[in-house]
Amino acid sequence: MSNLSMLTDLYEFSMANGYYEAANDEVGSFDVFFRKVPDQGSFVIFAGLQQAVDALENFHFDQPDIDYLRGLHLYSEGFLDYLQHFKFDCEVWAIPEGTPVFPREPLLTIKGPLLQTQLFETLLLNILNHQSLIATKARRITYAAEGRPVMEFGARRAQGPSSATYGARAAIIGGCTSTSNVQAAELFGIPAAGTMAHSWIEAFPDELTAFEKWGEIYPDNAALLVDTYDVLSSGVPNAIKVFKELQAAGHKPVGIRIDSGDIAQLAKAARQQLDAAGLPEVKITASNSLDETVIQALLKEGAPIDNFGIGEKLITSASAPVLSGVYKLTAVQSQGQWVPKIKISDSTEKLTLPSIKQVYRLYRPGSDQAFGDVIALKDEVLTSDITAVPASPLATKRQTVLKDFVAVPLQQPVLTQDHPDYVAPNLPEIQQRTQEKLAELPAATKRLVNPDEYRVYLTKSLADLQTELVQKYHEKEHVQ
Amino acid sequence: MSNLSMLTDLYEFSMANGYYEAANDEVGSFDVFFRKVPDQGSFVIFAGLQQAVDALENFHFDQPDIDYLRGLHLYSEGFLDYLQHFKFDCEVWAIPEGTPVFPREPLLTIKGPLLQTQLFETLLLNILNHQSLIATKARRITYAAEGRPVMEFGARRAQGPSSATYGARAAIIGGCTSTSNVQAAELFGIPAAGTMAHSWIEAFPDELTAFEKWGEIYPDNAALLVDTYDVLSSGVPNAIKVFKELQAAGHKPVGIRIDSGDIAQLAKAARQQLDAAGLPEVKITASNSLDETVIQALLKEGAPIDNFGIGEKLITSASAPVLSGVYKLTAVQSQGQWVPKIKISDSTEKLTLPSIKQVYRLYRPGSDQAFGDVIALKDEVLTSDITAVPASPLATKRQTVLKDFVAVPLQQPVLTQDHPDYVAPNLPEIQQRTQEKLAELPAATKRLVNPDEYRVYLTKSLADLQTELVQKYHEKEHVQ
Repeated sequence: MSNLSMLTDLYEFSMANGYYEAANDEVGSFDVFFRKVPDQGSFVIFAGLQQAVDALENFHFDQPDIDYLRGLHLYSEGFLDYLQHFKFDCEVWAIPEGTPVFPREPLLTIKGPLLQTQLFETLLLNILNHQSLIATKARRITYAAEGRPVMEFGARRAQGPSSATYGARAAIIGGCTSTSNVQAAELFGIPAAGTMAHSWIEAFPDELTAFEKWGEIYPDNAALLVDTYDVLSSGVPNAIKVFKELQAAGHKPVGIRIDSGDIAQLAKAARQQLDAAGLPEVKITASNSLDETVIQALLKEGAPIDNFGIGEKLITSASAPVLSGVYKLTAVQSQGQWVPKIKISDSTEKLTLPSIKQVYRLYRPGSDQAFGDVIALKDEVLTSDITAVPASPLATKRQTVLKDFVAVPLQQPVLTQDHPDYVAPNLPEIQQRTQEKLAELPAATKRLVNPDEYRVYLTKSLADLQTELVQKYHEKEHVQ
Repeated sequence: MSNLSMLTDLYEFSMANGYYEAANDEVGSFDVFFRKVPDQGSFVIFAGLQQAVDALENFHFDQPDIDYLRGLHLYSEGFLDYLQHFKFDCEVWAIPEGTPVFPREPLLTIKGPLLQTQLFETLLLNILNHQSLIATKARRITYAAEGRPVMEFGARRAQGPSSATYGARAAIIGGCTSTSNVQAAELFGIPAAGTMAHSWIEAFPDELTAFEKWGEIYPDNAALLVDTYDVLSSGVPNAIKVFKELQAAGHKPVGIRIDSGDIAQLAKAARQQLDAAGLPEVKITASNSLDETVIQALLKEGAPIDNFGIGEKLITSASAPVLSGVYKLTAVQSQGQWVPKIKISDSTEKLTLPSIKQVYRLYRPGSDQAFGDVIALKDEVLTSDITAVPASPLATKRQTVLKDFVAVPLQQPVLTQDHPDYVAPNLPEIQQRTQEKLAELPAATKRLVNPDEYRVYLTKSLADLQTELVQKYHEKEHVQ
């Protein structure tokens, strides 16, 4: 696949052509946000911004694409010419990758001609939904692993090539320490890791010969897969022989991997065998359809596992494979004035937050513990007390006065007149940000099951604007 | 992303380097197969072969890739040189795309130097697992739609760019009629389809103005989204006004789309309004988190829906987001002789089928209804009666004599000495094959819930070989 600019729903082109034909050169502002956290968690780890910005910066149409669109006989020559000479003319603000974010918070805000902003919807959502989904799952899994290294190795079960490679990137953002995916490792500078497959063992007359050959070739990287035949009667004893030979030759044995059977019992017995053989430093890696639930169960049973390898359940976020991020119009500039827009719905949950906004994380002065977020109109100044209401549409709209806080804005300029080129942090920096920003959250919010809801507020001004627009709509409806 | 050859687990490179260093130039044969059908279905629609073959035909390493691999300090210069001058030297047989296939059937068989075959594992599985998963889900959804056109429009919720685009291809193979994804439509010649988003409506002062403008620009393609404000009191009445104006000007109104609320009730009421207005030809399209279960429920209630638009539940196969296809060594050529190989396991379900095989679909003479499949050793001749046992490891191994059949081999040469270039069928041909091959299956096998298991057999020769290899292994183990 070449040009991501064509990764767009047809109706985006149709609407863009519509704006062109209607000579509508209004400027609109769109927000990317989500309403529900996967796996009943309380937050999402925001990821994918770098690829989203790359896609915007490289947005263009090649001649074959223009010819293809012309062949649809839907669009005007003027519009096709506009696409052929496409010049990005929008401003983008966004929350940095690796930030824990909450429902309804504007993650990315893009302002520009409706014609352009409409064209980016599908592509931005595809990239941000995917990477945020996987980063969020990786956070859950690494949280369950309680500091033990977690390796991502789901490439073979990922939903296509870019799902594997950008999924590996997102897994690192969410807390994984390495990936088996060499393409991701090369592209993003991620540590590459891996052992061997059962086929290596089967390609030799017996398991011991296969292990010995591996030890010869990788004397300092000998991690051995011990479950091809039988873990305890064959795999571990053979591994111990090879580790002893390596030790005798001055090398440091690395570990064993168990990929089938009852991991808890096998790990305990294997640990005993390794320790009895004087190999306490040999690590045990567990794999085989693990996820956060299984990891927590294994550790609760006291399984002596040092590292986890996670495949399909992470790279597809199998228990919750969709993050339903949306892209909604919040304001249109009409004769120089911003007019706030709202998407009306019978369900309060689907009402959008109008106008251009900023989201702030709130800390007590001198503390690095966050106690809530507040979504505000962009031009509000949050220096003194704020009257606020809960952002959740399910909560009663009881007003609270927030006092004694430091409000740190989360959205930062990404592509603006003052910042025309986005300088992305590198992946280790993003990964570190995730850990730092997680450390600021209350422990109860980070629990995997039934987490405490983190407090997200709307300023009274924003809440009032929403109420006013809903009322205005219903009055108008009544008049008709 | 550029070169898919790097989309490989690190251990594949490590094993390949191992074979190189061990001067092991043995030829091995690997099978791709799966054990479990997603969604408790009884079969999978095989898809992705064209992209898998493309990846093999284009397999190569660029200088930066070689430099990256060198920088890992794991591999020998000899091996890196081998990669740099990589020359594909394998033979591939496979079942054509669009074929319904069953657990344990060898879908693709690749024979070649272990060093090479090992390198392809991750990439082949990634592509075939993904597309087969989505094609299988699309079959379920289009089956539920009972002949009504189904449009794929999940790009924004797909797991990354290639998940969207190759997923759209697979959805077409599984029976969808169109996609919203313009990249997929362009690349694969799929009909592109779409209406408008709520943002188009919101960008105008009111819904009627937005519809009228759309009708002006697309007089012959006016499909209108009617749920931005209120479907029955606003959306449909406004759509009717515009359709009438279009009719008066000699154009044919297309349809409306309902994307929220209770689809069954809304569709019924909207149909009445449209019919009462003399617009019986205007189609109703339903969308909003639909899948096969919801579609069956809607149709059972008599919802007058003409077309379905399916997003996230299809493009991620949300209810079962993983097809766990595997890649297993089945034979190694040693001194000119093929030695069958088996992966031993305590679970009969995980025992592999040894040796190089072919799979046949069985028909009664003169009938186009298939009554079973049989997996045989490649050199067996299936002309007269066959003694066979059930392939399912859960079934008792009662022998059956299969008589009076025509056995059609499913695997065909894809890349062999006689067929050095793969000529892929085009997508409509593959889609048609799916429909033809589905028509051959018993109705009870195609049921979505609790389908009847289709009969898949092993020839007695194959079953005996498996038993013999298991016994040999256990005897050897006993001796130790």
